[in-house]
Amino acid sequence: MTSRTQSTFSPPVMEAQRWVTDKTFSDCPLINVSQAAPVEPPPAALIDHMAQIIYDEDTHLYGPVLGLPALRSELADQWSRSYEGEIHSNHVGITSGCNQAFSAAVAMLCGQDDEIILPTPFYFNHKMWLDMAGVRTITLACRGDMIPDPEEAAQLITEKTRAIVLVTPNNPCGVEYPADVVMKFYELAKERQIALIIDETYRDFHSQTGAPHNLFHKKCWDDTLIQLYSFSKAYRLTGHRVGSVIASETRIAEIEKFLDTVSICPNQLGQKAALWGLQNLGEWLANERLEILTRRSLIEENFPRLAAKGWKLLGLGAYFAYLKHPFDISSDTLARHLVDAASVLTLPGTMFVKDTDQSGEGQLRIAFANIDAHRINLLFDRLEKVIL
Amino acid sequence: MTSRTQSTFSPPVMEAQRWVTDKTFSDCPLINVSQAAPVEPPPAALIDHMAQIIYDEDTHLYGPVLGLPALRSELADQWSRSYEGEIHSNHVGITSGCNQAFSAAVAMLCGQDDEIILPTPFYFNHKMWLDMAGVRTITLACRGDMIPDPEEAAQLITEKTRAIVLVTPNNPCGVEYPADVVMKFYELAKERQIALIIDETYRDFHSQTGAPHNLFHKKCWDDTLIQLYSFSKAYRLTGHRVGSVIASETRIAEIEKFLDTVSICPNQLGQKAALWGLQNLGEWLANERLEILTRRSLIEENFPRLAAKGWKLLGLGAYFAYLKHPFDISSDTLARHLVDAASVLTLPGTMFVKDTDQSGEGQLRIAFANIDAHRINLLFDRLEKVIL
Repeated sequence: MTSRTQSTFSPPVMEAQRWVTDKTFSDCPLINVSQAAPVEPPPAALIDHMAQIIYDEDTHLYGPVLGLPALRSELADQWSRSYEGEIHSNHVGITSGCNQAFSAAVAMLCGQDDEIILPTPFYFNHKMWLDMAGVRTITLACRGDMIPDPEEAAQLITEKTRAIVLVTPNNPCGVEYPADVVMKFYELAKERQIALIIDETYRDFHSQTGAPHNLFHKKCWDDTLIQLYSFSKAYRLTGHRVGSVIASETRIAEIEKFLDTVSICPNQLGQKAALWGLQNLGEWLANERLEILTRRSLIEENFPRLAAKGWKLLGLGAYFAYLKHPFDISSDTLARHLVDAASVLTLPGTMFVKDTDQSGEGQLRIAFANIDAHRINLLFDRLEKVIL
Repeated sequence: MTSRTQSTFSPPVMEAQRWVTDKTFSDCPLINVSQAAPVEPPPAALIDHMAQIIYDEDTHLYGPVLGLPALRSELADQWSRSYEGEIHSNHVGITSGCNQAFSAAVAMLCGQDDEIILPTPFYFNHKMWLDMAGVRTITLACRGDMIPDPEEAAQLITEKTRAIVLVTPNNPCGVEYPADVVMKFYELAKERQIALIIDETYRDFHSQTGAPHNLFHKKCWDDTLIQLYSFSKAYRLTGHRVGSVIASETRIAEIEKFLDTVSICPNQLGQKAALWGLQNLGEWLANERLEILTRRSLIEENFPRLAAKGWKLLGLGAYFAYLKHPFDISSDTLARHLVDAASVLTLPGTMFVKDTDQSGEGQLRIAFANIDAHRINLLFDRLEKVIL
């Protein structure tokens, strides 16, 4: 007997954390580029606001399963403007983080033994949920530019396929999928009557201004499209667990069943904080984006130092750089070696293809969003010196 | 194709809410006894504490998947004392509410087409999750005293059975299962090598002081027992979504996969509030309990007025009274009728047996925890006058 949880692997991030547990890095402080999460609190004005609304009675009571109406409506309005499409509050469900949005979308679309097409390398929590939901992951290997190919995807669709999942900007590869590629995936999904799930957790750090795709321009976008988003990165609300899912009203009604059963409602304070962020932190977020783009440029500027040693930059964007190393050892072994030899914690490519027929060998993910210019330089100093 | 969400029904509480939407009760204000949730905020001292800890940086960052170590450890210590057993912090997982604790426990125990034995009437969210998880619900009908029979349960166990679920004090029936009955279920589960899930969401309002069962006295309790709890009722933290699951370390490690994938971690502020509650609100909670017990007594004292009209009191305890009405119509029809005829919103018994071969006819659940003495009397005045 294999239970749902037994059908998947343990969280890779926690495995990586164990590599550094009980180790001291006193001579050479660890540069932790393993996790894609803010390490600083939200801006002071938002914290002050939260300290005030903690005195509102309804902050402590159950709210609607699909989230606060004001937040659903504000998100719909802002999304309608930025994507130039018609998105109503009834299209929006607020979730306890973006992972829950993905879980709910999959539970809404799939039954046991259905299939979902997932580009690899993938975000490992997506694979874990598909395993637990009894859904077969059909891998779509990204090569060269790390952008999945719609024509290759077309070959993978069977009568059991329920959706294609895109994460853009991508985790782990950092790549921003071009609007025309995203549109080709949409057209493919529409034609084959499956869903297109697009996870835009990192949208606020896209290098391009304006909408990164035109899917919401389509009149009946909600026949096909399901968009996921997280408030964790934009307003540094990771500890409060707030995300969203946008889909047709019919699909949102199905998703409501899942959300009700698993958590009743998203936590109220986090939702109010997200709403205040949407209404007041536009300019602040624009500056955050510029800072991330500056760090991205520093990675680009520094990279020739590694290229000279045989490294390749496979993908770069949002929070991530995805690298190919030149050594003749597995990426898993290298990642562990880098902890001791260079005081650097990265995640190996093997974690992003786990339990598939892909190898992920030779690849490393660097989540650079949390390290400043000085430490980016230091990171390259250390990697440059690695000899095996 | 039936997806996971399509394999279950819509949330019954929301259906009941629609019965009163757009209705005015100006002449006769609605008495809403449909939901088992506090309608008042936490005590002022806890709110002040929350306003302070919102300024701690880590309140806004990811925490450990299984919850804050301090909260896990405090719960383990207090539970060890109150149940007189050995419970360590490694046995404890903190969840985003008690529904998530149930979902995680089931995902940890069951695969597709496995079976779980669930006494009826049941808490409908349990049934919804079993449906979505692809688990067959084997109903164990409660009759007469509304206490499930372990011997009857023994007849229902097959090679696909993974657990028996008990909710005590029970939702919807209010009944407190006697310690010896709970022990018989434990012995049965142990002997047949299945799990016993015991949901003690309403434990803090038990009429008996001291431990309501002796399961944690057993040396290897963690081979069999999985206990669920919620911080929502005790400290009025419903809007913050904090619950817990206690099980063997091996099982907690499996549950961790589910929690990581669905929500990464419980929200940090809610966890810190729950910890402060455990550490500081013992006396306050004791008084809350007395208030609920007073209300329970008022139900008992008033009940003869309904008994005279042919009603029966099937169960009473914690937040709930479970009634049998004397009318020759379905409980669903009666519940809708009571909204218009008596300005009372109850839930019909049919909701607690949904999609099973049980009828639930003639039964009504009254969640009395939120109505004071005056309104309890008023409730009986109104029900006493109902004629069909």
